[in-house]
Amino acid sequence: MIIVLRKDADKAQLDHLKDWLNSKEVEIEQITGSQSTVLGLVGDTSHIDIELLEALDIVESVKRIQEPYKKANRKFHPADSVIDIGHGVKIGKGRFTLIAGPCSVESEKQICDIARDVKASGATVLRGGAFKPRTSPYSFQGLRANGIELLQEAKEKVGIPIVTEIMDLSQLPLFDNVDIIQVGARNMQNFELLKALGKIDKPILLKRGLSATIQELLMSAEYIMAGGNEKVILCERGIRTFETATRNTLDLSAVPVLKEKTHLPVIIDPSHATGIAAMVKPMSLAAVAAGADGLIIEVHNDPPHALCDGQQSITPKMFDELAGQVGTLYNAVKEMY
Amino acid sequence: MIIVLRKDADKAQLDHLKDWLNSKEVEIEQITGSQSTVLGLVGDTSHIDIELLEALDIVESVKRIQEPYKKANRKFHPADSVIDIGHGVKIGKGRFTLIAGPCSVESEKQICDIARDVKASGATVLRGGAFKPRTSPYSFQGLRANGIELLQEAKEKVGIPIVTEIMDLSQLPLFDNVDIIQVGARNMQNFELLKALGKIDKPILLKRGLSATIQELLMSAEYIMAGGNEKVILCERGIRTFETATRNTLDLSAVPVLKEKTHLPVIIDPSHATGIAAMVKPMSLAAVAAGADGLIIEVHNDPPHALCDGQQSITPKMFDELAGQVGTLYNAVKEMY
Amino acid sequence: MIIVLRKDADKAQLDHLKDWLNSKEVEIEQITGSQSTVLGLVGDTSHIDIELLEALDIVESVKRIQEPYKKANRKFHPADSVIDIGHGVKIGKGRFTLIAGPCSVESEKQICDIARDVKASGATVLRGGAFKPRTSPYSFQGLRANGIELLQEAKEKVGIPIVTEIMDLSQLPLFDNVDIIQVGARNMQNFELLKALGKIDKPILLKRGLSATIQELLMSAEYIMAGGNEKVILCERGIRTFETATRNTLDLSAVPVLKEKTHLPVIIDPSHATGIAAMVKPMSLAAVAAGADGLIIEVHNDPPHALCDGQQSITPKMFDELAGQVGTLYNAVKEMY
Amino acid sequence: MIIVLRKDADKAQLDHLKDWLNSKEVEIEQITGSQSTVLGLVGDTSHIDIELLEALDIVESVKRIQEPYKKANRKFHPADSVIDIGHGVKIGKGRFTLIAGPCSVESEKQICDIARDVKASGATVLRGGAFKPRTSPYSFQGLRANGIELLQEAKEKVGIPIVTEIMDLSQLPLFDNVDIIQVGARNMQNFELLKALGKIDKPILLKRGLSATIQELLMSAEYIMAGGNEKVILCERGIRTFETATRNTLDLSAVPVLKEKTHLPVIIDPSHATGIAAMVKPMSLAAVAAGADGLIIEVHNDPPHALCDGQQSITPKMFDELAGQVGTLYNAVKEMY
Repeated sequence: MIIVLRKDADKAQLDHLKDWLNSKEVEIEQITGSQSTVLGLVGDTSHIDIELLEALDIVESVKRIQEPYKKANRKFHPADSVIDIGHGVKIGKGRFTLIAGPCSVESEKQICDIARDVKASGATVLRGGAFKPRTSPYSFQGLRANGIELLQEAKEKVGIPIVTEIMDLSQLPLFDNVDIIQVGARNMQNFELLKALGKIDKPILLKRGLSATIQELLMSAEYIMAGGNEKVILCERGIRTFETATRNTLDLSAVPVLKEKTHLPVIIDPSHATGIAAMVKPMSLAAVAAGADGLIIEVHNDPPHALCDGQQSITPKMFDELAGQVGTLYNAVKEMY
Repeated sequence: MIIVLRKDADKAQLDHLKDWLNSKEVEIEQITGSQSTVLGLVGDTSHIDIELLEALDIVESVKRIQEPYKKANRKFHPADSVIDIGHGVKIGKGRFTLIAGPCSVESEKQICDIARDVKASGATVLRGGAFKPRTSPYSFQGLRANGIELLQEAKEKVGIPIVTEIMDLSQLPLFDNVDIIQVGARNMQNFELLKALGKIDKPILLKRGLSATIQELLMSAEYIMAGGNEKVILCERGIRTFETATRNTLDLSAVPVLKEKTHLPVIIDPSHATGIAAMVKPMSLAAVAAGADGLIIEVHNDPPHALCDGQQSITPKMFDELAGQVGTLYNAVKEMY
Repeated sequence: MIIVLRKDADKAQLDHLKDWLNSKEVEIEQITGSQSTVLGLVGDTSHIDIELLEALDIVESVKRIQEPYKKANRKFHPADSVIDIGHGVKIGKGRFTLIAGPCSVESEKQICDIARDVKASGATVLRGGAFKPRTSPYSFQGLRANGIELLQEAKEKVGIPIVTEIMDLSQLPLFDNVDIIQVGARNMQNFELLKALGKIDKPILLKRGLSATIQELLMSAEYIMAGGNEKVILCERGIRTFETATRNTLDLSAVPVLKEKTHLPVIIDPSHATGIAAMVKPMSLAAVAAGADGLIIEVHNDPPHALCDGQQSITPKMFDELAGQVGTLYNAVKEMY
Repeated sequence: MIIVLRKDADKAQLDHLKDWLNSKEVEIEQITGSQSTVLGLVGDTSHIDIELLEALDIVESVKRIQEPYKKANRKFHPADSVIDIGHGVKIGKGRFTLIAGPCSVESEKQICDIARDVKASGATVLRGGAFKPRTSPYSFQGLRANGIELLQEAKEKVGIPIVTEIMDLSQLPLFDNVDIIQVGARNMQNFELLKALGKIDKPILLKRGLSATIQELLMSAEYIMAGGNEKVILCERGIRTFETATRNTLDLSAVPVLKEKTHLPVIIDPSHATGIAAMVKPMSLAAVAAGADGLIIEVHNDPPHALCDGQQSITPKMFDELAGQVGTLYNAVKEMY
């Protein structure tokens, strides 16, 4: 950590700061320039609060050299993490995972039919929204508890693990038979929820916030992992930009960046990122080529009549064709990395 | 609501759509052009789900003409809302409210001393963080329940109502003696929390999300109001932009925009918006001139040692001077609107 | 075009507006609702100035249904455009183009060596910066006119067409022997330059601005094409977002969006988009999979000592390997579209 | 300047780097930590190219401690600059300047009438667009050379200096009798134009780019000043954000930030920033309160029929009232800083 001091830093305050830093068991090296003085801290600085330092009168700016996350950091865990979902399904390293299903669970028939279809095409996890975050209180909010029950029926009847979104920690008891708990983009910094999920033993699919940086995503993963639950799967689902032709902008460079910075698996959601069914295929293929570990895709057997987000859903038939292409491409690309 | 149809819209699907729209009790006017056909919907369209329409194969785009919020909408409530905080304090219309206090509650002495100071300077509400949203799990997370107790002590001893942030709806029972519940920027779209707050009878200070639009802020207010709680105070606290010289960018044009669109009071938070103590004064004065109903300002009796966000706090002495200037300016500006 | 009128629209002004619209030879359909009145314009509205309409007192908002670009619009030119560069090189439709070379031209030996290397690896166009846009006046500004001469020498000696950036229309005479003129991101809306380039007969590589939308990029292409020069190649090179791990965010969804909206070829620049040499490969492969028509890649024979942007350059050896992988992938992907 | 080295930095390369740095006459202090090694450079580092350093294999990141601008830097020029426009008009320090006029010059009568009106209300500079940057090639592009002639007639007849925008350096000869040359937001990084303007002796009104940071604005000012022309007036005119209720987001915190970082005067353009006539007044008053040195406001004698941007123009009558309020407020606020 580098602390740049103000030009006119008060001597007594500086001594006070140095004493405090010494008490944190970091070594201090001081560089005195004509325009400014700099302190270099040597040692483990991950527990030093950067904002506290920035708040000091005598400090102009602080630059962290070490990343502020540890458990999610590849430097300390060089090997790729593989997340075991149970039911013989694993995510990460050397396998490409297809997660598919409707935006919203609507009925037993709907979810079971889609589950069968996407499983037949190669999906190994079924997605489906039960609790739906909607910007309007007057929009359909999902089947909620009933939706989770329907998902569980599909899971049992079709034999496929399930992932669905939690919106508040009070809903946690309903997720006992859910295989992966999804934290949506709007909850990426719901820290109380993240802490609660850190204390259970279940895979978490953590979606990047609409305007979150990659480091913020990793800090949210760290919140979960710091509690003891290291089964975190990261998901890039588009960030907010000025572009309006797509709903969000899929940041595919997040894949190689995350692959460098963390050992956690990285999944891409082309459906929410683009919001357009016709864009799902090109962005899925691009995600494979960029080195992602999997895709989460919205599939609906009747897109025009889906209760929400139908616009971004593809049909089981389109998914089947795409799944084949993804497999072909993954095998071709695997040789290149 | 205007529905633009695709050029090659299927006749049967179009008839199906029209039947459905008729069932919603809106009138349809059709315009057939050479390039595209347009349906104009006449009547109350607030309960028609725009995303459902956009999902239809035959629809190219939809444009809402009416705002999607009703209870927060000035069109249906022309008069400014005044929110009664109790203890003789009101917010909105014809009065300028100063809310002040430390970023974090640290000790009884700290919070009571500041409470006395800011009250003496003219603040009518005390702020103080008990539950603190921090991006790192390793940073100080606030005194939590204990912090709320200390705030309540200050409230009783000094005689000033209090506002503090809720981070999860499980914390709600702790807020019984809190006068205004703050919903932080990261929770602006925590819809389960908003719904729960809609069912209580207590003023809510709703902060704009870091990348939220003004309409999204109003939709979140609508979530609370739709539940029955109309005591919502809006707060602009800076949005995320590419500028790095300030922590966020204070969007002061939000004041006149909100004044036009809603009857709810609008408060400005210059401390979080800028993140720099020296910017609090110019941005406070600008907020007054722009027509805001109040300010929420971080004040700390020992900024360099505040446990968090000290960088953006001003001292009680600075606050006292600023409060006087704000009063002078408010009186001068009041004549101009 | 849809014009939403204010609720209290003045009758005389409305009649005036209708007369004016009739004079523009568009038909008007009026829909009168309880909350607002809407005018639908039928016919060719591309010459109606939307801002003029929005400026009218009686108008609340205007929605354009037709795209404001014509020459760049795929609706009016369904077939993919192929741009002939001369020297037997074409860009677009059914072929994948590799453009490669150093960020800055530094010496005859440097540019000729790289030209030979990248040509041997399969590049068909040589890039190299002569005029360099730099944010600091104290940074190296390129070899300028001399840099263009060196590029021309490489072109002749090695036998490869060249592309280089123009920064001001006064430099145009220097570009006589340049095969493709590049308009950089910062000049995407330098309208005087675009107009001048519309009057010459030479391919233009138009880069998307750092915060430009896809429609703005197409409007800038339209500026060139409206002057008569239809040889425009579009280039996505990363947009500004809040992410700091990469220099910019490569918007690969721009590829399928542009493929739908325009007939012009689309090239991806992974070097400037990411700013990191190690990201060039994954983003290049992703661009191929997304359906791009080519890549423009920075290659330097001595990256650590390049005069600028060395950080984002790869070596000729890395380029050679990448070129092979790109070819393999392109053939695999071609079957999938 | 702080250089953070990679953990595995090659010894020979490091020695090479140190030699090079020594040749630049900066002193090096080295801090060796367990995770990384840091070099602190002491001395004048403004001529060291940060991108060159970042490009080195052994370098992880570089942090500049000194600002990269010198002539615009308040550290080296503590006193506020006052820009003399001639005709007895000065901008900056202790005076508040009103610049007003139509978006576009339309006719002699129009521009002279407005000139008379705004002068009578207290404006000391007349603005008016002759060359107009428009996103569509099919939109009105301004009266161009003829527009400048009409402005000059207004200048002579009414006795008021004029400011108008240059769009390309080839237009420079037309600006001989223009008192302030405006560089528009889209040209803020048209470096060739900035260099040319650095070689003339005439005040330049430099507008901040739509997505430019404050430091980038200052670097563009530095381009002009480095050439010898130190008469630069900065203008904040709104930045691009996700908010759609206003055309752009006026960043008023730029005022105190710029006041701290530079000695140049700062002018606010509320008309372009908001794009809405009704927002001009609140944002003008807020700009005064924030400490700006002046305003540039669009005034039109017939807003509904202005050829462009009428939506954001106010009438001479509204301007007259606003000018009075601005004066009153400026006097009240002056005492507070």
